[in-house]
Amino acid sequence: MKEAGIQTIRIGEFAWSKVEPREGEFTYEFFDGFMETACKAEMKVIFGTPTATPPAWLTEKYPEVLNCRMDGVKFRHGMRRHYNYNSPVYQKLSARIVEKFAGHYASHPNVIGWQIDNEINCEADVFYSESDTAAFREYLKARYGTLERLNRELGMIFWNQEYTDWSEVYVPRTTIHDSSNPHLTLEYYRFVSESAGAFCKMQSDIIRKYMKPGDFITTNGMFGHLDNHKMMDEALDVYTYDSYPNFAYCLEEDPIHSKGLNDRKWSNHLSRVRSVCPHFGIMEQQSGANGWNTRMEAPAPKPGQMTLWAMQSIAHGADYVSFFRWRTCTVGTEIYWHGILDYDNRDNRKLGEVKALHERLRPVRDLAGAGYLAAFGVLEDYDNLWDADVDVWHRRVEKASKKEIFAASQLSHTPMDYVLLSDSTEYEELGKYPVLFYPHGLILTERRAEVLKMYVEKGGCLIIGARTGQKEEHGRCVMAPMPGLLADLTGTAVEEFTFVGAVDGTVCMEWNQRQLDTGIFNDILETVSEDVKVLARYTSNYYEGKPALTERLAGDGRVIHFGGTFTRETVQALLEYTGILSPYEDEVKLSPECELCVREKDGKKYFFILNYSSQEQEICLGHEMRDLNSGEKRTGRICLKGYETIILE
Amino acid sequence: MKEAGIQTIRIGEFAWSKVEPREGEFTYEFFDGFMETACKAEMKVIFGTPTATPPAWLTEKYPEVLNCRMDGVKFRHGMRRHYNYNSPVYQKLSARIVEKFAGHYASHPNVIGWQIDNEINCEADVFYSESDTAAFREYLKARYGTLERLNRELGMIFWNQEYTDWSEVYVPRTTIHDSSNPHLTLEYYRFVSESAGAFCKMQSDIIRKYMKPGDFITTNGMFGHLDNHKMMDEALDVYTYDSYPNFAYCLEEDPIHSKGLNDRKWSNHLSRVRSVCPHFGIMEQQSGANGWNTRMEAPAPKPGQMTLWAMQSIAHGADYVSFFRWRTCTVGTEIYWHGILDYDNRDNRKLGEVKALHERLRPVRDLAGAGYLAAFGVLEDYDNLWDADVDVWHRRVEKASKKEIFAASQLSHTPMDYVLLSDSTEYEELGKYPVLFYPHGLILTERRAEVLKMYVEKGGCLIIGARTGQKEEHGRCVMAPMPGLLADLTGTAVEEFTFVGAVDGTVCMEWNQRQLDTGIFNDILETVSEDVKVLARYTSNYYEGKPALTERLAGDGRVIHFGGTFTRETVQALLEYTGILSPYEDEVKLSPECELCVREKDGKKYFFILNYSSQEQEICLGHEMRDLNSGEKRTGRICLKGYETIILE
Amino acid sequence: MKEAGIQTIRIGEFAWSKVEPREGEFTYEFFDGFMETACKAEMKVIFGTPTATPPAWLTEKYPEVLNCRMDGVKFRHGMRRHYNYNSPVYQKLSARIVEKFAGHYASHPNVIGWQIDNEINCEADVFYSESDTAAFREYLKARYGTLERLNRELGMIFWNQEYTDWSEVYVPRTTIHDSSNPHLTLEYYRFVSESAGAFCKMQSDIIRKYMKPGDFITTNGMFGHLDNHKMMDEALDVYTYDSYPNFAYCLEEDPIHSKGLNDRKWSNHLSRVRSVCPHFGIMEQQSGANGWNTRMEAPAPKPGQMTLWAMQSIAHGADYVSFFRWRTCTVGTEIYWHGILDYDNRDNRKLGEVKALHERLRPVRDLAGAGYLAAFGVLEDYDNLWDADVDVWHRRVEKASKKEIFAASQLSHTPMDYVLLSDSTEYEELGKYPVLFYPHGLILTERRAEVLKMYVEKGGCLIIGARTGQKEEHGRCVMAPMPGLLADLTGTAVEEFTFVGAVDGTVCMEWNQRQLDTGIFNDILETVSEDVKVLARYTSNYYEGKPALTERLAGDGRVIHFGGTFTRETVQALLEYTGILSPYEDEVKLSPECELCVREKDGKKYFFILNYSSQEQEICLGHEMRDLNSGEKRTGRICLKGYETIILE
Repeated sequence: MKEAGIQTIRIGEFAWSKVEPREGEFTYEFFDGFMETACKAEMKVIFGTPTATPPAWLTEKYPEVLNCRMDGVKFRHGMRRHYNYNSPVYQKLSARIVEKFAGHYASHPNVIGWQIDNEINCEADVFYSESDTAAFREYLKARYGTLERLNRELGMIFWNQEYTDWSEVYVPRTTIHDSSNPHLTLEYYRFVSESAGAFCKMQSDIIRKYMKPGDFITTNGMFGHLDNHKMMDEALDVYTYDSYPNFAYCLEEDPIHSKGLNDRKWSNHLSRVRSVCPHFGIMEQQSGANGWNTRMEAPAPKPGQMTLWAMQSIAHGADYVSFFRWRTCTVGTEIYWHGILDYDNRDNRKLGEVKALHERLRPVRDLAGAGYLAAFGVLEDYDNLWDADVDVWHRRVEKASKKEIFAASQLSHTPMDYVLLSDSTEYEELGKYPVLFYPHGLILTERRAEVLKMYVEKGGCLIIGARTGQKEEHGRCVMAPMPGLLADLTGTAVEEFTFVGAVDGTVCMEWNQRQLDTGIFNDILETVSEDVKVLARYTSNYYEGKPALTERLAGDGRVIHFGGTFTRETVQALLEYTGILSPYEDEVKLSPECELCVREKDGKKYFFILNYSSQEQEICLGHEMRDLNSGEKRTGRICLKGYETIILE
Repeated sequence: MKEAGIQTIRIGEFAWSKVEPREGEFTYEFFDGFMETACKAEMKVIFGTPTATPPAWLTEKYPEVLNCRMDGVKFRHGMRRHYNYNSPVYQKLSARIVEKFAGHYASHPNVIGWQIDNEINCEADVFYSESDTAAFREYLKARYGTLERLNRELGMIFWNQEYTDWSEVYVPRTTIHDSSNPHLTLEYYRFVSESAGAFCKMQSDIIRKYMKPGDFITTNGMFGHLDNHKMMDEALDVYTYDSYPNFAYCLEEDPIHSKGLNDRKWSNHLSRVRSVCPHFGIMEQQSGANGWNTRMEAPAPKPGQMTLWAMQSIAHGADYVSFFRWRTCTVGTEIYWHGILDYDNRDNRKLGEVKALHERLRPVRDLAGAGYLAAFGVLEDYDNLWDADVDVWHRRVEKASKKEIFAASQLSHTPMDYVLLSDSTEYEELGKYPVLFYPHGLILTERRAEVLKMYVEKGGCLIIGARTGQKEEHGRCVMAPMPGLLADLTGTAVEEFTFVGAVDGTVCMEWNQRQLDTGIFNDILETVSEDVKVLARYTSNYYEGKPALTERLAGDGRVIHFGGTFTRETVQALLEYTGILSPYEDEVKLSPECELCVREKDGKKYFFILNYSSQEQEICLGHEMRDLNSGEKRTGRICLKGYETIILE
Repeated sequence: MKEAGIQTIRIGEFAWSKVEPREGEFTYEFFDGFMETACKAEMKVIFGTPTATPPAWLTEKYPEVLNCRMDGVKFRHGMRRHYNYNSPVYQKLSARIVEKFAGHYASHPNVIGWQIDNEINCEADVFYSESDTAAFREYLKARYGTLERLNRELGMIFWNQEYTDWSEVYVPRTTIHDSSNPHLTLEYYRFVSESAGAFCKMQSDIIRKYMKPGDFITTNGMFGHLDNHKMMDEALDVYTYDSYPNFAYCLEEDPIHSKGLNDRKWSNHLSRVRSVCPHFGIMEQQSGANGWNTRMEAPAPKPGQMTLWAMQSIAHGADYVSFFRWRTCTVGTEIYWHGILDYDNRDNRKLGEVKALHERLRPVRDLAGAGYLAAFGVLEDYDNLWDADVDVWHRRVEKASKKEIFAASQLSHTPMDYVLLSDSTEYEELGKYPVLFYPHGLILTERRAEVLKMYVEKGGCLIIGARTGQKEEHGRCVMAPMPGLLADLTGTAVEEFTFVGAVDGTVCMEWNQRQLDTGIFNDILETVSEDVKVLARYTSNYYEGKPALTERLAGDGRVIHFGGTFTRETVQALLEYTGILSPYEDEVKLSPECELCVREKDGKKYFFILNYSSQEQEICLGHEMRDLNSGEKRTGRICLKGYETIILE
């Protein structure tokens, strides 16, 4: 391992039984022995808490700790995360085992950090046990005080769903057509996030009592129904991510016909991680074919892909990369979740890649801490993400636009950030972006509308899409024309709106003599203020000639209101119009098959160029640069082989 | 509202809690206030009983009122119809709340009618609670008397399913491959219909005690496993229908490639409604895009479509049309079930259409009570409809032929009626149709065979298709050659039969030098009586040359036996052969894109012409007619714009 | 019946209630009457035990006898096999009813044999009742002794699944993503097989106490999770099979585009049956369209197909053929499981075929007992079959290769056998095949590796494919290079391996200037012994140029190691290379549409030629032969009509 440049290993994350083989009996033999070995080998250790897999004795004795299907059938032992965060018993036993792990090992000199649980909310991000119902009632009481208020604010009047007693309140249960009150469900997702966050914080608080100064607490993400930003703030020192770009080549995918950029889509995920934690780590970097015995069949990474994907992580801000896993597991569900080494434990070409990567990264170590340079931002908030889980109309537009904005950013080499918009977001967090997209902010709050207005007035350019301002915080529709709380700013009102149906074909708008697809949903705009400029109008369907894209100057900035959902062509046109398209074109010209990431530290820019294609790609430098790996000066044309990456300075 | 011509509103249908917020506590404040407003505004009111959505306090205290999945998991609060009709507790509480509603409001001068529950059997038309099992046992006891008879008549001998005690009898439960005894399941569907009907009648009986003379009782349909004709007879004064033709354009549909006529398919549904109640009402006429937050995404109706669909209702016999709903709901599952007004409550083009329609209909008010003129009838009975739910072989032929007969009727402008065939159907109900199709009467009873024979002997032309007479009333196969009880009449016997398999291609018959597709199932006919004429023979598959279509004269009429399932081409050929094709061809020539409906009153014919296409269509009048809206005389060619409708006299 | 050549009928298999209508009340009236009739008609009778369908009184009184869904919901009365084999109550009651059946009827002169239960493991081959859990614990205790050993050998350490008490052990239960420990699941399938086998043996032991000398015991197969070979050895005298080739033409199939040979695939199934019992019977030979009221819609067999399929059974070794069923059932789930006669009970063309077949087979009766002549064998073992049920990666390669080996055998007229490989397989069972394929023996044991080595050393040619030797008996991966226990023999090691992904296109190997598809999974081979000859190398993907096919001579034989999954082209090339392709080419030349089977008795060869196509096919005899049906001498070209069959000697 050491030879391959591996300096740190993570252990313990599923090993509850190894330390507490029977209730209340603790033994440290196994990990003491392991730590001794680690000491001798001078390996650093990240210790995982084992709460993701309760032992068999625990779930058998206390079945109330188990998570359930919505219909009440308990999930049993044999997988992961079959417990619920709200069981008092599980909380107590988890606290005790974490106390034991931390108490015994936190002072160990080779331990450098702690991972809480494993992949929180992975495998399950909905919880239906009786403990969850009990905790949900408390959560709602704290938030709404009275049932009258809850009934009113969650629209329980619809279909006669009003509660008259707290005992009538449950987490979502089995209903006909699986249709529960959407506002309650949205609140429930918030509750799931709170529950997971509190479970994480409970562990973090314990570990902090024992942890050596300089050690860190992390967990590895990122999964659904979880406010990662809040969890980061309250419980973690650093955020880590598990990066598996090879999922794009699984049997159930269609990488040839996909417009989703395949493994390169992980750059999108990594941008979200960066939003949580600008300098994050990769706790699990893909090192082989992946799959379970039951599903997810994927081919082996091609030579170069492991390196490419690790470089993708680094290019996007990872300052720590750990491959998962050293040796392919020979037993259990994950025998096809291949590690660096195969079952036979022999040296192989993947280990060769790891070694080569280690060598290659030696000269670029100083890069740690460099910032990622984004040309624009995409606003995102948990309210709308979770509302899209509740509301399929919302989901469709959300998914379509996010995918296409990312694609436009990638293909035009205009790097982007995801930017959190919450009620505590300050102007300063937005002001650094000349342009911000907020594609479908259906749910808007006054506080958020305020900060967006300030952003515009202070010189920013805000671009919003269809459905903006449709709802308030509970997902209830606002009884005012869209874009609701932003209508003053945009000077527009949505006159009418419609899905684009199968018989409607592609509906376009004409903008500067170009026909641009307005996507799968169209808000028909009208201008209600004289200073609004109509940039483009629809050119078909029954609203032909009606405004599709408007612009209004406000303060030192401007707001662009787009009635449709975004396509990569529309986004590219908007980037061009706002003057931020392809900002590094003078430095380096490259084909769409390559990704360009730029990190900056101490005034120096580092250009990462990643070739995702199996084919050779040519790039062209605008001026002389230094290849950080070889140290050579480079100029003019450079050929990147299939999957090759290069870091230039 | 008044301005838009809206004179009547329906209220109360989900408002149990508003009147009984806690068990046994009644308050009339909310609706008293509302009725006062209605009085002032001179609005008429249809009051709905609130039993479709029991309150949370009720389902929490009496979980036995809940309906269940087949596997026993209860459906919980949050949707509609989560109760079962057979719970004694629910019957008692429902009776009481209806008594309160009716007792308090029936005498109110602005109340003109009552709607019982809402969309009975919508969302759920199967019920698996313990109360259902208890009631099912009583139902079976009443019908069969002894288990010996039940075992015999329902074929329980198969796979050793014989009951030895009534306690062994249940509504269908979980079985391997979801396969229960088909005869018991057919009986169970009859039981569901009886249960729903009794629940409706219970309410009707209560309301009648309080109702003002002249007011009416209705409910809005139409849904599965419910004998609407019987319910109409026993409990209702008028039947209303909820018409949502826009479903044809939902995301999950394929309106471009569909051969099912899209929104025009609702003319088929309306014809079924007309069979229940010749002069029906529309309780909910589509007024916007529809959908829930969980499913069913549909585009907004195009300008003109709302009017078109309302005219479709009227053309088919609706004498009352109420749009659903005034304002789009801002909370709950149906925020995308758009009303006339959107969330913002502003005047809009849909309200404009409603107003225009109101103006337009002013001159045609006298039309109310006019009869629909059908050129032929399609016999339908609940036994075969429900048997097709049990028997997938039956279902396939049923669906295929019904769809195609309707399509042929529409495209050739040969209007049709659905005609109920039950054991109490009298000759008089059939005799008015020169031609009757009974496409796949698998289940035949002696009484029905009798009336069909009388129909033929008295001059009718009966056309039957494959599988006719295969079964008796319990769905058991008859041990006699098909068409069983009609064999004497047809003079034929089915020698053999087969699905048309994938390797068989299209199997045709030759009729008058034309090759006509014999559909997805073929009965191979033989003539057993000398007076049978073979009209056409199969031209491929192993039964090439065997009779496919025969005719026999009987009494003053004739019977045509077709071995296949119907296609639109075959039906058109049969309409032509029987001399009833396109009966209004001399009055008006029109393209297949337009529907022609003819209503008659006091000897005057009213021609409704509806253009379902977005394109302009030309029609051509055979003689001068009067446009009922404009009062103008029209002659020769008339251009109908996309979605335009016209009423001529 | 007699007229049609029917001499034997099977009765009783679902008739528990007929003999024990109430618990403990026995009556023999029904079958006594029946046997009397059989006596008079001189019909022989096979008596079935009725345990496949417990009566309603039994399941109502003892619900613990019912099988369950994995989530614990009981399967109820109404289908078959809704019981579990391990319920002590069901075992007791089953033993008693079998005792009654056998005690009363075994001595009857017309009874010639007994069928135990009906289609054991059909409809359900997984069982989740509490009795199953109790029995599973005992099974595991007997096999592993201690939990420590069980934990270790089944890899329970993965995801912290270690048991600390036997009470924590269950049959698989509901888990997130339906993912249980794969090694435990594999053991569970073995347990299911043991349970079913023990249930069958319990009945067999009872019947043997009463059975007349010369009578036989059988059951009809073949279904999943059941070691038929062991059941045959321990409990049966002869094995019977239910042959329904018409499934290939069901609605859900795509017989036009299938590469799976449609009805001819049943030759593959029959070869498996032959492996269990070389001279088997057909208990149910298809005699009509098949289907249930809930699913499986199939067309009627074409004229000739019933005969073809019966001849297919005989050609593959059936010495007894019984059509299912005489008359189509008029009630219950199987009204579309058509018999010879239809509902109407009239003489028909299917009965004509049965009669003609009976006449035709009269001259070939002596053929009974003739052996099937296979040119090569395909090794199969239950461990790998069931591991493929647990492991989807395994399943995909297993299914692909088996299908293609069979296809190559069929299309090249190189007959094959399936050959069981178990730990008790002796060299003698293998030695008679010059070539043995063992396509994907992932699980290998030392005993099996030994016998394979002996086979090679004594002159056999063993051909293995990808993944061979990946696992040990519990499905754990071996920590040694593949092919594991066969590596010494092959002189190869698998360097790396991968699924062939969607972006990889078809990966080929070049062998003698031909490009041969290496299938869906590729093991990249390396030679580790000098005497290994590389026959072919990969020609694309990142392992282009690496060995794909190697050969090593060992003792008097040789072993061929193929890195891919088999295609029909690859198999044909291997058959050619090993010199066994088309062994009867000199005797008879025939098109790929026809199957050739050869049976031999007393030194005489019988050539069965079966035309599966609806089209006429020409065959060409190499020398004069005798047509066994007509007795005529034939030579040169013979035309076979669609579906026609011929037996030549």
